[in-house]
Amino acid sequence: MAVYTDVSDEELEAFIDTYDIGGLLSFKGIAEGVENSNYLLHTEGGSFILTLYEKRVNPDDLPFFLNLKKHLSKNGISCPLPVENKAGKLLGELAGRPAAIVTFLEGMWVRRPKVAHCSELGAGMAKMHLAGLDFGMTRTNSLSVHGWRPLYEQSGSRSDTVSPGLCKIVEDELDFLEQNWPNDLPFGVIHADLFPDNVFFLQDKLSGLIDFYFACTDALTYDLAICLNAWCFESDGSFNVTKARALLNGYQSVRTLDEKEFNALPILARGSALRFMLTRLYDWLSVPEGALVTPKDPLEYLKKLRFHQTVESATSYGLVL
Amino acid sequence: MAVYTDVSDEELEAFIDTYDIGGLLSFKGIAEGVENSNYLLHTEGGSFILTLYEKRVNPDDLPFFLNLKKHLSKNGISCPLPVENKAGKLLGELAGRPAAIVTFLEGMWVRRPKVAHCSELGAGMAKMHLAGLDFGMTRTNSLSVHGWRPLYEQSGSRSDTVSPGLCKIVEDELDFLEQNWPNDLPFGVIHADLFPDNVFFLQDKLSGLIDFYFACTDALTYDLAICLNAWCFESDGSFNVTKARALLNGYQSVRTLDEKEFNALPILARGSALRFMLTRLYDWLSVPEGALVTPKDPLEYLKKLRFHQTVESATSYGLVL
Repeated sequence: MAVYTDVSDEELEAFIDTYDIGGLLSFKGIAEGVENSNYLLHTEGGSFILTLYEKRVNPDDLPFFLNLKKHLSKNGISCPLPVENKAGKLLGELAGRPAAIVTFLEGMWVRRPKVAHCSELGAGMAKMHLAGLDFGMTRTNSLSVHGWRPLYEQSGSRSDTVSPGLCKIVEDELDFLEQNWPNDLPFGVIHADLFPDNVFFLQDKLSGLIDFYFACTDALTYDLAICLNAWCFESDGSFNVTKARALLNGYQSVRTLDEKEFNALPILARGSALRFMLTRLYDWLSVPEGALVTPKDPLEYLKKLRFHQTVESATSYGLVL
Repeated sequence: MAVYTDVSDEELEAFIDTYDIGGLLSFKGIAEGVENSNYLLHTEGGSFILTLYEKRVNPDDLPFFLNLKKHLSKNGISCPLPVENKAGKLLGELAGRPAAIVTFLEGMWVRRPKVAHCSELGAGMAKMHLAGLDFGMTRTNSLSVHGWRPLYEQSGSRSDTVSPGLCKIVEDELDFLEQNWPNDLPFGVIHADLFPDNVFFLQDKLSGLIDFYFACTDALTYDLAICLNAWCFESDGSFNVTKARALLNGYQSVRTLDEKEFNALPILARGSALRFMLTRLYDWLSVPEGALVTPKDPLEYLKKLRFHQTVESATSYGLVL
């Protein structure tokens, strides 16, 4: 559930005045993004999204995120373009929080992606990877293999209350991944959170990518592995190999995977399943009793992990090298 | 906190296709209205609000609300205009719920109203009252004097856990109001929920009224009494007579109060303070332990009730007949 910071009329007017976007016509909190407060702005200059960065985002990371969107936009990737204020800055302050205005992107995320969406996603992601290659900034992925054990330890033995035997499964998997995680794959900027709600479509054509607040420098193929998990399983837990093939072929229509990347897909998919299971597990165990907001089910990702553990080669994802 | 019903891609497309508003470009849940799910739509035809009516709204009341907005719009009042679908209907069904599309209204509600806003509000409300006089439908105010005792009884003796002695205060007040409530005041359509978040401004000029889901047929002056409570107290609980005078003078610049209405203002203000205290009290006692959503404080309205109990004449509201 999105957070909504209270913004006073005067603060808001003063903040908008620091931009060249005309007078304010409308200002509405929108239910998107769980980390930040997002508002839809109408001004005389058009439609924009105003984001207030809440405490889960490290302010030191904001220049990376904002400059990345600017770089990608300039290089033909449809994503929200940060608007410079009159002082030429992408970042300001509102209601005591870092704040930025980005252009409004038309399009809708699909609640139930079909094969054609997976194909579009693959191609769009590959274009983003290529466009990001000459981006000058880097950001470590704190939620990659070295971040998982400390993250798990915050849940620790309480994990077994969510599913008996979970501790043993996670510990074995951590041991395996730490020993076998590949470190020689092509690196670059990845989105790292390309779930369906971050990918916009207009009439089944990809119209834009949003929410770059997990973007980082990591193996490009890891982004694909995340999408295998986020887009290619059905709600009954079954793996849809047709969607996976469409995703991977779509990707390769723009950027071809090399042999190392091809071979690494199963372990990257295991790692990414574990990563989302661990963050969900942490949230699951942190939510107060009786809360109205239901956290996402960590066990959905346990099932995905179990599937990838049985995969011996990337050909199981419908891909032929 | 607004509710968000899950709407599938196919259902949404099919629903939009029943209207002549062009193809869908964007669809976002917005954080407005606590009773219903509201979405901002961009289509090739413009910006709209799509509302899904959740269970707190009685479907039998929807024709009243929608036709009222249409009637007021036609008569020069700026409010969301319900859009007819291709079959000429204002109401459809989406995701198993009654659903309607209305035009998007520019403007923002003010977080901290000033005197000038109260004056604008008074004039805007009076215009709405006049425009509503020839509206052909009626709806009983279920939250007027005869609804308060049954509402109170749902909280009953638990009220004292919120504030010791509250039961006695409420019961005495109910006795007083039931015996003295005026029933010979000019009637018409009232909004009955004109809190600041339902009144839009553009540069300190009223630009529209929204959220007519408590609208009903009742004493016109009762709407004014609600606004005395909702707009004219400061956050420290003090009554701002300058704002009250601006509200009442703004109203009278369009529609003059008669002597009965003038004399009834204090009791109507007491009644409306009790009405909001009772609904808040009910919500306060109904929220589960540990919930993330904090209900509004009923005691804010107890303080307001206490103030109006000391008022002997409407001149205390800054008004001279």
